[in-house]
Amino acid sequence: MAVTLGELAVRFGLTLRGNPDRPIDHVGTLAGAGPRGLAFFSNPKLIDQLVSANAGAIVLHPNMQDATPLDCLLASNPHASFARIATMLHPPLGGAKGVHPSAVLAPDAVVDPSAHIGPQVVVGARSRIGARTYIGPGCVVGEDVTLGDDVRLVARVTVLEGVSIGARSILHPGSVVGSEGFGYAPEGERWIHVPQVGSVLIGEDVEVGANTTIDRGALEDTEIGDGVKIDNLVQIGHNCKIGTHTALAGCVGLAGSSHIGARCRIGGGVGVAGHLSICDDVSLMAMSFVTTDIREPGVYAGGSIPIEPAADWRRIVGRLKRIDGLNRRVGKLERQVGTKENVADEERS
Amino acid sequence: MAVTLGELAVRFGLTLRGNPDRPIDHVGTLAGAGPRGLAFFSNPKLIDQLVSANAGAIVLHPNMQDATPLDCLLASNPHASFARIATMLHPPLGGAKGVHPSAVLAPDAVVDPSAHIGPQVVVGARSRIGARTYIGPGCVVGEDVTLGDDVRLVARVTVLEGVSIGARSILHPGSVVGSEGFGYAPEGERWIHVPQVGSVLIGEDVEVGANTTIDRGALEDTEIGDGVKIDNLVQIGHNCKIGTHTALAGCVGLAGSSHIGARCRIGGGVGVAGHLSICDDVSLMAMSFVTTDIREPGVYAGGSIPIEPAADWRRIVGRLKRIDGLNRRVGKLERQVGTKENVADEERS
Amino acid sequence: MAVTLGELAVRFGLTLRGNPDRPIDHVGTLAGAGPRGLAFFSNPKLIDQLVSANAGAIVLHPNMQDATPLDCLLASNPHASFARIATMLHPPLGGAKGVHPSAVLAPDAVVDPSAHIGPQVVVGARSRIGARTYIGPGCVVGEDVTLGDDVRLVARVTVLEGVSIGARSILHPGSVVGSEGFGYAPEGERWIHVPQVGSVLIGEDVEVGANTTIDRGALEDTEIGDGVKIDNLVQIGHNCKIGTHTALAGCVGLAGSSHIGARCRIGGGVGVAGHLSICDDVSLMAMSFVTTDIREPGVYAGGSIPIEPAADWRRIVGRLKRIDGLNRRVGKLERQVGTKENVADEERS
Repeated sequence: MAVTLGELAVRFGLTLRGNPDRPIDHVGTLAGAGPRGLAFFSNPKLIDQLVSANAGAIVLHPNMQDATPLDCLLASNPHASFARIATMLHPPLGGAKGVHPSAVLAPDAVVDPSAHIGPQVVVGARSRIGARTYIGPGCVVGEDVTLGDDVRLVARVTVLEGVSIGARSILHPGSVVGSEGFGYAPEGERWIHVPQVGSVLIGEDVEVGANTTIDRGALEDTEIGDGVKIDNLVQIGHNCKIGTHTALAGCVGLAGSSHIGARCRIGGGVGVAGHLSICDDVSLMAMSFVTTDIREPGVYAGGSIPIEPAADWRRIVGRLKRIDGLNRRVGKLERQVGTKENVADEERS
Repeated sequence: MAVTLGELAVRFGLTLRGNPDRPIDHVGTLAGAGPRGLAFFSNPKLIDQLVSANAGAIVLHPNMQDATPLDCLLASNPHASFARIATMLHPPLGGAKGVHPSAVLAPDAVVDPSAHIGPQVVVGARSRIGARTYIGPGCVVGEDVTLGDDVRLVARVTVLEGVSIGARSILHPGSVVGSEGFGYAPEGERWIHVPQVGSVLIGEDVEVGANTTIDRGALEDTEIGDGVKIDNLVQIGHNCKIGTHTALAGCVGLAGSSHIGARCRIGGGVGVAGHLSICDDVSLMAMSFVTTDIREPGVYAGGSIPIEPAADWRRIVGRLKRIDGLNRRVGKLERQVGTKENVADEERS
Repeated sequence: MAVTLGELAVRFGLTLRGNPDRPIDHVGTLAGAGPRGLAFFSNPKLIDQLVSANAGAIVLHPNMQDATPLDCLLASNPHASFARIATMLHPPLGGAKGVHPSAVLAPDAVVDPSAHIGPQVVVGARSRIGARTYIGPGCVVGEDVTLGDDVRLVARVTVLEGVSIGARSILHPGSVVGSEGFGYAPEGERWIHVPQVGSVLIGEDVEVGANTTIDRGALEDTEIGDGVKIDNLVQIGHNCKIGTHTALAGCVGLAGSSHIGARCRIGGGVGVAGHLSICDDVSLMAMSFVTTDIREPGVYAGGSIPIEPAADWRRIVGRLKRIDGLNRRVGKLERQVGTKENVADEERS
């Protein structure tokens, strides 16, 4: 679709500088968008890219408008405005209303007539599918599932029995919601399977990444708050609770019964041990490992020491593993050089 | 379904204390189970929860029976007894016997008449499906596969050609068994694909978590012993062998030809390098990294250092990387303060 | 199929030593291959296995031919020659030409008549499927996808709209190519979804492992070079570029906009932060964590410290976290023992 720059300014409440009649039909990078393309600029460090840009128009902050002669839309949050315009120009693939003939629906599933049920889909008994909800090819929806309005299961998603998913949430391909968690009772050397009778409650505006897994609760429910964004290949154990607007990057693992607060940012590859609480507004750097509660907002790191050339790394590891010996040597030196102060230092450190 | 507390006591060989006629129809938490709900108690640290419990009845150890006035079932292993009762009260979703009309079965597949083959399933040539086995929606079973009795493929599981799965095993959604492993022969700068002609043998009572992958052997078979429990998003490389009753938590990666003993407990996110052996009865703490054989039973850790505030962590990492310099400084001090003993210390440490 | 050893020698350009009429019908290990089986030998450390081998014939280097009395094929690269012979003896499961009646194809999809479209497959509008390409059961191919000749989607693979995959590439079960990456614009406490309008370009002879995910580009394309081999459960973020013939082992995570050079070897579990460049010919040891550019070829490690018994590890971690204190104690000793040299050491370290 094509709209004019003037129409975009009106529709998204932005200030126009330049030609209101310029047609815009796609978004792109500063360098790659064509004369009908819209780019955005928000990072002052990349100002060189702005100078050499040749997009049709640029969304940027009013402060930066003097840095380019190109047509502009001025926005207080250029990235967010760009995201909204991009969604209008590049809507997700739709699908005809109704049920594809190859889909298998339980007779008592309740599907809104405006929903799209794609090819090779299965929908179980008593499930309810909301208005304009899109169930892409190869998805499996179990029994007693509730999908709100405008939900999107992209393709080959599995949503198991009893799960509830709020409006406008997006589940990417291969994701699994409601699998039975790792619940076993030890008996001698064996593990006895414990049925997982809780469910999963997913809020509104949530995203679940490709091949991510969210286990159902053991006795109570696993809960994912409104606006939570979960990247690919993330594991969320049974009974986890994640607060609103928290974002989890790829390859994160949350063990069972971890509680994460609201507005947290969990970096890629982070591991969180079970039965922990992390308070609101915590950022965890990538590859961190959390084994205790976090009670203060802030930025935390730990876990992985960044790389070195392999020979150096092996020498460092060897020394690190002998740090106890080094500590003893320093203690001995302190006693030899010997003042009371030294001994006090040793005890404190 | 509902049964009386007295019937449960008889059926599961437990001692009843309280009203044998109390109807029980579900399991739940101490706080959340209703008057017809059964909870369990096994962790003395949580005794406060027991005091405030309002479940219909509680499974607990005889030692703890004085701590609650509620009806009780007394069990030497309360969690295991609870698991068995829960399985009776909350059986997994079944399915009608027979083959759904949308399933595609090879003409020479052999399916027990008591098995359930769900919608959109594919079963390949010469595969054999055991009695009461459940193949949920969207599963793909390749050629020459053997599924024992009472096996359960929950949904969208892939089991590739020649794989064998023992009785009562459960494969969770998205899991893949029998994929070709990472086998390549280097030739100049290229990698030549090496066909993986081994298979995967999975024992009885095994569980394979959601989106977990188990590669087939290169020339011999990958083997998963009886009673092994594997959580979600685990990668098991070609030719791995895992001993009976070992449990692997989420996000574990085993490189090719790793051998894990029986009754091991592998924590979440653990990485095991290839061609290693880990003996029986080893526990690996979460996020550990194993690069050598483990020959003694016990608990091992290593890999990730738990988190700190990010500024502290950056300072620690800086110091850790300069530990060689610190070691040299201590050595120099020892020589200056100077006794033979010091020099010997330095050499030992 | 069976061929004679002489035919193999001619066909693969190898030197025969022994009986040219020996029939060969499978590959196997040195110990496990039967009299009609072919094994290979390339690791001099395993020469004991060669001595006790009882395969029908062995592919090995001319230098090693005196170490066995068995029939041999002599090859300068025994593993690569073995791989090629194994591919001939054990071809991947084929499928009849044509489209299975349960598959759902868009009317304007263009499928080469020699391609195989298996059961329960979905192919979207305007997609083009090359000659002899195999689309296994349960795969979903979106709109405007291009699959080259001899491509193989094993089973339950998802390839989303606009993705292009080069000739002879293999995608293993559960893999997802073209999912929308983790792109959000922060606005207050919320995240606004940014449509990902780039695509994924996959070269020729690429492999994508089981349940691996490759995100589409945000504005430009994610690019995977010719000959790249990606293992299972790998996450490749939006806008990543991977150079030719690079191999990534299982459980690797590449954050968005990471660029990896050609001929790199990335070990299992490695994490690479976003917006980094790694040059050609870099090897990263397993479980490494990369947070800065790598500009020199070589072997790098870091991240995880290999395991210790858990009690030792806890003591080591405690000391490591107090390394700052230890450093201060050494500095104080140096000032007390006191020479200018010491002070200079302190400043340098």
